Amino acid sequence: MSMATSPTETRPDITKCLARFILRTRWEDIPQRVRHEAKRALLNFFGAAISGCREPAIDLAAASLSEFSGGAQATIIGRQKRIDVLSASFLNAASAHVGDFDDTHIPTVIHPTAPVAPALLALAEHRPMTGEDLLTAFVLGVEVECRIGKAIMAAHSRRGWHITATCGILGAASAAGKALRHDETKTIYGLGNAATQASGLIECCDTMAKSIGIGNASRNGLWSALLAERGFTAPPRSIEGEHGFLAVMASAVDVKAVTAGLGESWELMRNSYKPYPCGVAVSPVIDCCLMLRGALASVDDLAQVVIVGNPRLMARADRRDPAPGREARSSAQHAAAVSLLFGAPGSAAFSDVRVQDPNVCALRGRIILQADPALGIEAARVTLRMVDGREHTIGMEQARGGLERPLTDTELELKFESLVTPQMSRQTQRRLIDSIWMLERSVDVADVLLLTSPDH
Amino acid sequence: MSMATSPTETRPDITKCLARFILRTRWEDIPQRVRHEAKRALLNFFGAAISGCREPAIDLAAASLSEFSGGAQATIIGRQKRIDVLSASFLNAASAHVGDFDDTHIPTVIHPTAPVAPALLALAEHRPMTGEDLLTAFVLGVEVECRIGKAIMAAHSRRGWHITATCGILGAASAAGKALRHDETKTIYGLGNAATQASGLIECCDTMAKSIGIGNASRNGLWSALLAERGFTAPPRSIEGEHGFLAVMASAVDVKAVTAGLGESWELMRNSYKPYPCGVAVSPVIDCCLMLRGALASVDDLAQVVIVGNPRLMARADRRDPAPGREARSSAQHAAAVSLLFGAPGSAAFSDVRVQDPNVCALRGRIILQADPALGIEAARVTLRMVDGREHTIGMEQARGGLERPLTDTELELKFESLVTPQMSRQTQRRLIDSIWMLERSVDVADVLLLTSPDH
Repeated sequence: MSMATSPTETRPDITKCLARFILRTRWEDIPQRVRHEAKRALLNFFGAAISGCREPAIDLAAASLSEFSGGAQATIIGRQKRIDVLSASFLNAASAHVGDFDDTHIPTVIHPTAPVAPALLALAEHRPMTGEDLLTAFVLGVEVECRIGKAIMAAHSRRGWHITATCGILGAASAAGKALRHDETKTIYGLGNAATQASGLIECCDTMAKSIGIGNASRNGLWSALLAERGFTAPPRSIEGEHGFLAVMASAVDVKAVTAGLGESWELMRNSYKPYPCGVAVSPVIDCCLMLRGALASVDDLAQVVIVGNPRLMARADRRDPAPGREARSSAQHAAAVSLLFGAPGSAAFSDVRVQDPNVCALRGRIILQADPALGIEAARVTLRMVDGREHTIGMEQARGGLERPLTDTELELKFESLVTPQMSRQTQRRLIDSIWMLERSVDVADVLLLTSPDH
Repeated sequence: MSMATSPTETRPDITKCLARFILRTRWEDIPQRVRHEAKRALLNFFGAAISGCREPAIDLAAASLSEFSGGAQATIIGRQKRIDVLSASFLNAASAHVGDFDDTHIPTVIHPTAPVAPALLALAEHRPMTGEDLLTAFVLGVEVECRIGKAIMAAHSRRGWHITATCGILGAASAAGKALRHDETKTIYGLGNAATQASGLIECCDTMAKSIGIGNASRNGLWSALLAERGFTAPPRSIEGEHGFLAVMASAVDVKAVTAGLGESWELMRNSYKPYPCGVAVSPVIDCCLMLRGALASVDDLAQVVIVGNPRLMARADRRDPAPGREARSSAQHAAAVSLLFGAPGSAAFSDVRVQDPNVCALRGRIILQADPALGIEAARVTLRMVDGREHTIGMEQARGGLERPLTDTELELKFESLVTPQMSRQTQRRLIDSIWMLERSVDVADVLLLTSPDH
């Protein structure tokens, strides 16, 4: 249904309903499996952020923010230097997402943890926060951002909005407001202060500017809650109002998705963790290529590789010659080529060196994409057409790391270790992993953040 | 035309075209009348900012930002305390617009100076800047924000975007990039870094949250240019790309409006300055009421007041019982009531005290609005229906302060003086006014900013 045309009087009180849900939900109300999923999301987040924090986009943003920052208030994950609370929230969110290795909420393709967790972690160094409080606020932040995402996702993303940024700010504001123990009025203010800052263009997603959207979602969401705490006012219907977030952000809105089953079903249970550092749509392509690699004596025997995927794969990842920088992470051809040539890809497989490697270039040139609407977003089919006329085809219904084939806790630990090993000793890795699995027992989350600075 | 459906190849290079215009235009290329209009806009800006800087929204934002700010780098206009460059840009923009007394670009209803000037003024305390450089960059920033506004305005504003915020950030980034002497590549980066941060909802315009949109437009536009200076990358077609600013921000886009006559016609010549501190659509209503006041011995003789205006007036300003806070500034009934009762309204006429005044309430209750599409946005007609059956009608085709009846330089000085007198001595007022009229001779704009601190 379109909200822009329905009269104000008949619209459900979405903003108020969300505010009440946020402030009334206690740690005791969150099921064990959701609590555990929150910790899995945070473990994955720390790995991605520690790995991502040395990317040029983060270096440049950190250097710029440091010029204007009020000092060493909060941890920049993976770095020795500290910075003010708002800038820490920005940088840690940007670090977590910059490598495209953070989590994905499958129904919306929102990366839910990057905007929400850093707002809470920075706040935890500003106001004491227990692990239980952090986890409760984190679960609620993710719930709000993903539910609002579900209400607008198709029309919103198609138009060109980067949904992690636009909805993430509402998650960050909700989480920070919960941690600050806001009442209903202040929770509503925080949501409104955030809604009016929602931004982020898909057009920017292949450049450093992508990090601005994610960083702002976290920083500005946190600031929205801090302003609300001071009594900075916002409208009562910032989400559902005639000129509010939903009406402005999408031409078609599924209003019910925001509140149906609130407190009964949990969006974190639809969260997934990538085994490979690239766009989710590319994951099943890599799975297929890794399985086909056994049938391949030499890439010289290959005449052509045919990748068949959901139309979304064609729209987002058909890039035979990715530009230097970030584009390779959204290139199905590149992902297939490096997987066939070198096996399971890590971050190095998407570096400029690999993108420009003559063998990789040559193989990418022999890979074509085809769309099949019958295939789901987690599915793909890859055919190797050999010079001698033979063909090998592998189809994958559910990518590894997806909802049907989730990474186990042990696989998540291994992913974390592979991401942080360059910067972090084995001993610190183990202590950080254990701290996250036992986070609800922490009396002060700032202690956990001490473990995220590099010790190598 | 809609850009979202046209293929990338056929779209004009709008981002590149704007970037070249920004970097190639010199002080010598700007006509004398445009230079003078820039100074009129700045004089009006300083009055509005010095008057607005004590509003609660600015107090709260300043207190919050101070917690995280890196010290006394830049002037907060109207305050003794200084703050970091980015926060100064935020606060000075918010101060200039919070009282609804800043300038208005008539074709778009953008308030062009509030986002652009503070970015340049804060930058001038960070990097030395001459008056000529500031004026050149200011003219170009206004040109970019208003031209992009013209391309999207109808569909954009109707959907619920606050156009001053969404387009203002592009103006601020353009102006700051010019002042930083960016080359073409960095100017394009700056525009992209800004485009991905564009935000601001009309839903928030009656609350303090309105100030966030304006403040962010300035702060984030400035930061976009500073990031670009460091080589922070953004896409080449952030404005016209398939998922770029224009496609995302409006369902219908007049692409030609961005670049037609660039460097020949100047949007500052369509800028106007309000004589009254309320929405522009309300201005002609006040003009009519002030003229009718002579015919009115006592409001007790009034049976009814009928206000007829453009349908936009009905949509935006039909508020018989404005809530405390900011709503009265967008209430045609309130503006008419205080004008009939007390004469030409200043800021005090829109205070909560006046809103709740029993005489004002009683008169508002006898005022009705009617829409007439034949009336322009600067026109209105007011009829007093007396208890004895007589009627008095006054129609106004062009509001005072509009393009056809602009405030003179002397009237602008008087408006400035009325706004700043509580905080600033007559002597300082005169020095600041003279500094602005002679701004192109200033060798360091930071000297002018020294005059904007309160001395009372």
